[in-house]
Amino acid sequence: MLVCSRCGREYPETFRLTCNCGGTLLVERDYYDFFGNLLPYLDMRRYLNFLPIGGTYLPPPVPAITPTTSLQIGAVFALFKLEYLQPSGSFKDRGTFVTVAKLMEDGVNEVVIDSSGNAALSMALYSLPAGIRVHTFVSSNMMPGKLFLLSKLGAFIHVIEGDRMTVHERAVEFAESEGLTYITHWLNPYFIEGTKTAAFEAYEQVGLPDYVLAPTGSGTLFLGLWKGFRELERMGEIPELPRMIAVQAAGYESLCKRSPERNILADGIAIPEPPRLEEMRRTLEDTNGLCVSVTEEETEEAWDWLRKVGFLVEPTSAVVLAAAWKLIEAGEISDGSKVLMPLTGSGLKLTEGI
Amino acid sequence: MLVCSRCGREYPETFRLTCNCGGTLLVERDYYDFFGNLLPYLDMRRYLNFLPIGGTYLPPPVPAITPTTSLQIGAVFALFKLEYLQPSGSFKDRGTFVTVAKLMEDGVNEVVIDSSGNAALSMALYSLPAGIRVHTFVSSNMMPGKLFLLSKLGAFIHVIEGDRMTVHERAVEFAESEGLTYITHWLNPYFIEGTKTAAFEAYEQVGLPDYVLAPTGSGTLFLGLWKGFRELERMGEIPELPRMIAVQAAGYESLCKRSPERNILADGIAIPEPPRLEEMRRTLEDTNGLCVSVTEEETEEAWDWLRKVGFLVEPTSAVVLAAAWKLIEAGEISDGSKVLMPLTGSGLKLTEGI
Repeated sequence: MLVCSRCGREYPETFRLTCNCGGTLLVERDYYDFFGNLLPYLDMRRYLNFLPIGGTYLPPPVPAITPTTSLQIGAVFALFKLEYLQPSGSFKDRGTFVTVAKLMEDGVNEVVIDSSGNAALSMALYSLPAGIRVHTFVSSNMMPGKLFLLSKLGAFIHVIEGDRMTVHERAVEFAESEGLTYITHWLNPYFIEGTKTAAFEAYEQVGLPDYVLAPTGSGTLFLGLWKGFRELERMGEIPELPRMIAVQAAGYESLCKRSPERNILADGIAIPEPPRLEEMRRTLEDTNGLCVSVTEEETEEAWDWLRKVGFLVEPTSAVVLAAAWKLIEAGEISDGSKVLMPLTGSGLKLTEGI
Repeated sequence: MLVCSRCGREYPETFRLTCNCGGTLLVERDYYDFFGNLLPYLDMRRYLNFLPIGGTYLPPPVPAITPTTSLQIGAVFALFKLEYLQPSGSFKDRGTFVTVAKLMEDGVNEVVIDSSGNAALSMALYSLPAGIRVHTFVSSNMMPGKLFLLSKLGAFIHVIEGDRMTVHERAVEFAESEGLTYITHWLNPYFIEGTKTAAFEAYEQVGLPDYVLAPTGSGTLFLGLWKGFRELERMGEIPELPRMIAVQAAGYESLCKRSPERNILADGIAIPEPPRLEEMRRTLEDTNGLCVSVTEEETEEAWDWLRKVGFLVEPTSAVVLAAAWKLIEAGEISDGSKVLMPLTGSGLKLTEGI
């Protein structure tokens, strides 16, 4: 069932963004026996028994199990999870896969989404074979490369002048006026069901990390990872949750103190007012977590380092490393710790402007 | 050991391209018990026990286990293996991973490679963290996006006027005059050791296919898949080899009859004189295989179809589907058959010219 994070009201598992009280929703189910319920797939279908979809319709580009590769940073084990190796080039495909399967089950065939790029690209890619028409609301400063790909995937593109929040508002207005389903991943509980599988995979690959660092704008990956580890804890697989570290972009912080300067480079998390803010705060409290803000300069340095070890990613992906460096230097991450860091978006899309 | 395909001479497992007689080399080892020797990784390291490298040095961007997803085409089960979901955006990373590990073991730190794009990109990506300097010889008509990525990865770029064979000759000359190691994947036996793991994965994922279709220019994927299935046969896992189908681009055929028209779109296999031609011929004979040539128009149609089902790939990737359509129509592929088709290169790199 879907459960409201604010008032606790329950709803059946159909597509829905918020509670009638305005609160955000999460899927709540009881699971038992993690390893006993894995399916013998070597892709995301491996975790189908932990997903709120029937499996009758699954979109053809099944998300991959992404490698998790270890590199030592001083005395710390950095565990980079290559989440950018997905069909649309970002971790978003995990959430989209579950969302599109659910929309198909519900018979929805036309939707509205707003995005800084990757979420829209992912949705367009998975909707095309599902026969779902996608209206994407994007900012006029969206990268031309992503816009081009979006148009090739048959999305109806609505370019909006203004910042990320304005794009969001226009999308909501359009969906309401046209009577269409608005499916922002900022709220969509099925999206988080997809991203939680990254935690399952990481657990299978490297066991329980001590810290999990995630780029955190809307928080869909941060909360997904938390939810995945929480389900593992409830299944009795792990004794406690890893410490969840939310990494934010300077000037766009929602959990950390807002900086006067702006990190424009990490555009994927430039979301100053995310609707799941309360849940993220609670996660930081519950896991003895932290929020870390990183500047553009720090992001660039980390991005450069990642490229040199062979990770061709988008700048937003680099914020986790920048944050890890700061936490190690500050003594917040102790020697011998295992630090899981998802790298979220592919650098292959950036051929004209890396 | 390395064994010459022409005279049978044996060499130790150090980096070497050809036999003294000029014949091509393959790694030959005896393996037993496939499932008993899998390692508990969910990435390419799963197959380390079947690779001729020690594992002391492995490049950080470990190739992924790529999803294999089934779509029905009429009464045939098309099994698309998403080989483009690799760190550099192509299947080449499998071969490069093994090659770079071997070069490190041998203490090689400067190499020369020629490529239409993907092989060079892959080599540059994996060489950077390994501290190997890479001279890449590319054609002046190489896609600007790929060239840009290559320069960002620290490769020394040598742009050559002329066709693919001219680029190859210039690279060989340069390596000889500078006393550097020339590492073309056209000949490199360690490259094929990497690509064979795609067969292992496919076998784990979907069992033994009836047909395997591979884009075939230099044949490094075609022969890798054949070698992987042959090793499974020798380990007693499968009773016989699948029928190997080499798919070639019109105008550049080496196994099929040469067409007068040219398929420029499938540029990844525009290799009219591959050095492993005899081995490919033998593979077709041994497996009751076939060669199929596809035109630019057929490639484009298949490419379009792939995009609409959510596979954002390079045009060369589409030739396998074009060939499958022709074989199904001709009755060569019978109803109920399982047809494995690797999709080889990512479309994300093509933001300026898809």
